[in-house]
Amino acid sequence: MTETQTRVLLASRPKGTPTAENFEVVTGPVPEPGEGEALVKAIYLSLDPYMRGRMDDAKSYAEPVKLGDPMTGRGVGQVIKSNNSRLTEGDFVLGTWDWQSHAISDGRGVLKLDPATAPISTALGVLGMPGLTAYVGLLDIGQPKEGETVVVAAASGAVGGVVGQIAKIKGARAVGIAGTPEKCAFLTDELGFDAAICHRDSDMADQIARACPDGIDVYFENVGGAVFEAVLPLFNPFARIPVCGLIARYNATALPDGPDRSAQLMRSVLTNRLMIQGFIVTDRYDRHGDFINDVGGWIRDGKLKYREDIVEGLENAPEAFIGLLGGENFGKRLIRVSDDPTR
Amino acid sequence: MTETQTRVLLASRPKGTPTAENFEVVTGPVPEPGEGEALVKAIYLSLDPYMRGRMDDAKSYAEPVKLGDPMTGRGVGQVIKSNNSRLTEGDFVLGTWDWQSHAISDGRGVLKLDPATAPISTALGVLGMPGLTAYVGLLDIGQPKEGETVVVAAASGAVGGVVGQIAKIKGARAVGIAGTPEKCAFLTDELGFDAAICHRDSDMADQIARACPDGIDVYFENVGGAVFEAVLPLFNPFARIPVCGLIARYNATALPDGPDRSAQLMRSVLTNRLMIQGFIVTDRYDRHGDFINDVGGWIRDGKLKYREDIVEGLENAPEAFIGLLGGENFGKRLIRVSDDPTR
Repeated sequence: MTETQTRVLLASRPKGTPTAENFEVVTGPVPEPGEGEALVKAIYLSLDPYMRGRMDDAKSYAEPVKLGDPMTGRGVGQVIKSNNSRLTEGDFVLGTWDWQSHAISDGRGVLKLDPATAPISTALGVLGMPGLTAYVGLLDIGQPKEGETVVVAAASGAVGGVVGQIAKIKGARAVGIAGTPEKCAFLTDELGFDAAICHRDSDMADQIARACPDGIDVYFENVGGAVFEAVLPLFNPFARIPVCGLIARYNATALPDGPDRSAQLMRSVLTNRLMIQGFIVTDRYDRHGDFINDVGGWIRDGKLKYREDIVEGLENAPEAFIGLLGGENFGKRLIRVSDDPTR
Repeated sequence: MTETQTRVLLASRPKGTPTAENFEVVTGPVPEPGEGEALVKAIYLSLDPYMRGRMDDAKSYAEPVKLGDPMTGRGVGQVIKSNNSRLTEGDFVLGTWDWQSHAISDGRGVLKLDPATAPISTALGVLGMPGLTAYVGLLDIGQPKEGETVVVAAASGAVGGVVGQIAKIKGARAVGIAGTPEKCAFLTDELGFDAAICHRDSDMADQIARACPDGIDVYFENVGGAVFEAVLPLFNPFARIPVCGLIARYNATALPDGPDRSAQLMRSVLTNRLMIQGFIVTDRYDRHGDFINDVGGWIRDGKLKYREDIVEGLENAPEAFIGLLGGENFGKRLIRVSDDPTR
């Protein structure tokens, strides 16, 4: 049976929460690599909240996906044909393969993976972009000190889990916020967080305050919305707030109703001498070597654990992505596009 | 004629904008210095926006003034009687003399001034707390680079004028916002700002945008409110926003009406990788030596100018302070409590 290529295209731009209609799954013949090119068969596709921003036609730090183009995305695959001297059939490769079962590569921006060092899927999670996001955001901007309190939301997700565990490694107290009691139990029982709070509880703000009796020194911001409002009154003087994402707002079509809390936020910035800094992981690849050394070592030493949330089949990527934006994932969400020959 | 002591007390806490009724001017006998104490006769009292915060009974970085106590404040005076071995009659001294014509000092926290080095009033302005605020906020947090654009509001005030001139000294473009055409002309003609915009003009936001064709790299925040809304869309990637004051909001009794712009602010923090950092000058006295060297040198070299706005008589301090909060001052606002024997 001849293989076909499956692709997921951006069919229309969402208004608010994306729906299945915003995506189109198409199939066709597998493309042939040209001169200097290789054909990569996708194994894992990473689903990440930033992709929501690329669906909009708005000025941001990256170009939007064009209508009719495949959704953008990083993945791990295997080279199955090559006319490129740097890529060999059988190589496991990390690259921007987009939401496609097969992709053509000219070798640029491709990283070869050694399955003997770490499971290839980790290059998309704990040892990939989400892990590096946690590492640089927490260590370079958050700078937690021993005995300080670090709070992170989406704490059972790809970034949050690493944030909390690095906080613990650095001697800080880690408080995580997650969406279900099961996720909260995972945070405290498996990842070693000091406390975990369910953001669906109506008294979330009170619970956070009780879990942070000495206030908050670092708040790793990846969600925004109600969690940010709950932590704002708890900041200690000189608290640091790395901002890597605002998933609670990605589907918003208008600013929230008043009052205008930016005045309250700026007052707290002033009186508490807060430092709020946004960052995008792609600006921070100078830290990649340190990151791999440190986090790779912590994983080998059993100090840092990770969990993957794998959905089967590229055709299920739209639904899995919509669910990710709603927080249904439990760990790093990946699409298994084809069988992983290393497992 | 026997001298009397005049004091201005906090009579009641303001609701919104302070009024004359919130203050009480009282007179009485000049106090006698006890063992180890000295009597200081005030010459200049510094009026500063931060004093508005001390009138409220709210948690902040400093204690509120108690009802019935004199308003807090720094001043320059002269020792006229001394039982303290470190203070000599005739010494010019900088200290927290509060809103009083005469104060008792035990010598703690007192700095002696040499009138031969600089006019004694400058210890309250360009060479004092406002100058240090501008210096550390701009250089340590804002970090302007050659060719970048620096925007500052209240630019003809004690802090803003120094911010813009240091920006120019560092090779950046300086854009100032002030309250009248006269102040704007002063910024460009006297202080060397590249552009100046009147915040009372209805098209202020458009004028700021036109004055910053390459966007904004540093916004020195000392006002908040409408100016902040106008600069927010203009921030370049990696812009820095030192926050030293929010005078536009100091008299506010409630949050502004919606929409809730904090979502817009955080989105800009993320996509533009902004760094927003609040600071209080009293945390930054480790930089005092560098500040005096640098700013003192720039003044001597004619590279940095300053303007004082002197109101006569301590009994006029309440009105002068209320006017300061409304932006009526033109330069560093001081009260001349008694004649300056060095002028």
